[in-house]
Amino acid sequence: MMTIKRIVLASRPLAEPSHENFRLEDAELREAAEGDVTVRVLYLSLDPYMRGRMSDAKSYAAPVPIDGIMEGETICEVVKSRHNGFAPGDIVRGRTGWCTGAVINGDLLRKVETHGAPVTTAIGVLGMPGFTAWSGLKFIGKPKQGETVAVAAASGPVGSMVGQLAKLYGARAVGIAGGPDKCAFVKDELGFDSVVDHRSENFVSDLKAASPNGIDVYFENVGGRVWDAVLPLLNQFGRVPVCGLVSQYNGANSSQADRLPATMSAILRQSLLVRGFIQTEFAADHFNDFLAEIGPRVASGEIRYREDVVDGLENAPDAFIGMLKGKNFGKLIVKIDGVVS
Amino acid sequence: MMTIKRIVLASRPLAEPSHENFRLEDAELREAAEGDVTVRVLYLSLDPYMRGRMSDAKSYAAPVPIDGIMEGETICEVVKSRHNGFAPGDIVRGRTGWCTGAVINGDLLRKVETHGAPVTTAIGVLGMPGFTAWSGLKFIGKPKQGETVAVAAASGPVGSMVGQLAKLYGARAVGIAGGPDKCAFVKDELGFDSVVDHRSENFVSDLKAASPNGIDVYFENVGGRVWDAVLPLLNQFGRVPVCGLVSQYNGANSSQADRLPATMSAILRQSLLVRGFIQTEFAADHFNDFLAEIGPRVASGEIRYREDVVDGLENAPDAFIGMLKGKNFGKLIVKIDGVVS
Repeated sequence: MMTIKRIVLASRPLAEPSHENFRLEDAELREAAEGDVTVRVLYLSLDPYMRGRMSDAKSYAAPVPIDGIMEGETICEVVKSRHNGFAPGDIVRGRTGWCTGAVINGDLLRKVETHGAPVTTAIGVLGMPGFTAWSGLKFIGKPKQGETVAVAAASGPVGSMVGQLAKLYGARAVGIAGGPDKCAFVKDELGFDSVVDHRSENFVSDLKAASPNGIDVYFENVGGRVWDAVLPLLNQFGRVPVCGLVSQYNGANSSQADRLPATMSAILRQSLLVRGFIQTEFAADHFNDFLAEIGPRVASGEIRYREDVVDGLENAPDAFIGMLKGKNFGKLIVKIDGVVS
Repeated sequence: MMTIKRIVLASRPLAEPSHENFRLEDAELREAAEGDVTVRVLYLSLDPYMRGRMSDAKSYAAPVPIDGIMEGETICEVVKSRHNGFAPGDIVRGRTGWCTGAVINGDLLRKVETHGAPVTTAIGVLGMPGFTAWSGLKFIGKPKQGETVAVAAASGPVGSMVGQLAKLYGARAVGIAGGPDKCAFVKDELGFDSVVDHRSENFVSDLKAASPNGIDVYFENVGGRVWDAVLPLLNQFGRVPVCGLVSQYNGANSSQADRLPATMSAILRQSLLVRGFIQTEFAADHFNDFLAEIGPRVASGEIRYREDVVDGLENAPDAFIGMLKGKNFGKLIVKIDGVVS
């Protein structure tokens, strides 16, 4: 029998996690079967999403059970292999959890490829956090030349990549970070165009000053006060990829009176798309398609409609006031016998 | 001089509009210039967005000025024309505002084409409201066969079209309406699969029962209580086109403590895209592209990163607890000298 150390979830935190929620213990590894690989852990990645796994609220992933090993991704060295794809000495990446070693099916492992960068980058800038930044920008944020991209936790693994990619793509990068050291790193080392300290009492006005053309892409990973400051600066057709809400994870903002945290949580957990639109955005290119598709169906009665017709311009205000209370039944139209005399 | 009647904005409403906010008055039309068309109004469309134009809050469109004519779209008959495209007797659609007649440049008018349906449909089911439903579904909601599409104000011009289009596209349509008459119309006349009365005290459980497979597309046009009921029912990768927030227009929900209405208003007014995502959604198809693009840049130092390395599995809980408070500086990694003994 092989023994390892691991950390399990001892209890669920109600707000901030504390030591009592975790337990370090010895465990015995199962016998390796055909296809299994035995690994020793070199590096464990700690990421904010793990706070979600400690709760049993509805989410995109099942919670860690009580007494279950804390989930997490690790960089490991292969010790023994009963899988064709791996040999002792290989450096691999896998979701072994918070532990010192594991027996795991080789199909769940991936050899570390970092193009010459240190192996730790495989759980950082070249791993899940870096890919989060890259895919969120590429498929959702889509920054254009000259646009402004803002990101919080800008010195962190996601934020630092978001800003640097924004620069690569020809956009302006505005970082938000906490304290002078992190801010200096974001500006001087990462090369963001601007950085704003969210601990400053002038944070809101500083962010506005740092974004003179507004914000076109806000990469959301914190929520809370930062969202409040960003919201009025968002330009028309702004894009907000939401990959995290660290400020909410410990439940600090979850009052019943404020429905925003629950909404943002649902957007994150269910990967929802919320998109405001005014039909004029699409009308020039597509109104005729609409008419060709729907017009004959309305004329034939296949598509039904109902009108609520009020007579006389002088009755328009009353009708309008009633409509805002739901008093009309069908499309509200004022019939006017216009005379041009 | 030609005289018309018109309704102007007398003052801005603070909450619900009232009669004092409107004034009916006579006005004289300007002389028709080359390119102008003189029209008499037949029908005026009344729509919820007009409440927004009565306020001077930041929006996608300028507010109506005090003493300015209330904005709106009308169906008109051409009386005189100094524009090549129009002749007396033509039925046209244009933004003349709340009035009985107008002199307007012909380039701003559009001949009514309804494929044989009544002309009033050009400001309803075949006009802006119908097109709002169609474009919101086509470009944002994108319902698939067998999915569930929910919409509020389902007897109204947008909602009635949303549900009928959802059916045409092979989806299940759940309508929300107020009162038995509207609900009966939605179910019996429009052919929605299900309808729920938002005035019922069982509204929340009724909506859940009407959506046994959850909701894939929620076409948002009201906000407020309906949003609260829909939110927990939204499925993964749900889509929420937001074309209106009628319940908010009179300011009823705009307390400082609740940040949701301001967020939804910004999403609507600025046509924002908010999209939650988990990187796993994109990883299978795109992780290798990411690595090929970014790996060499990290290895060469062009893309910078910072790691915060903590030593020993036993220190993982402390490091994790600190990370949720922003104490780490760079990607948090636990170095483990794993031994498999």
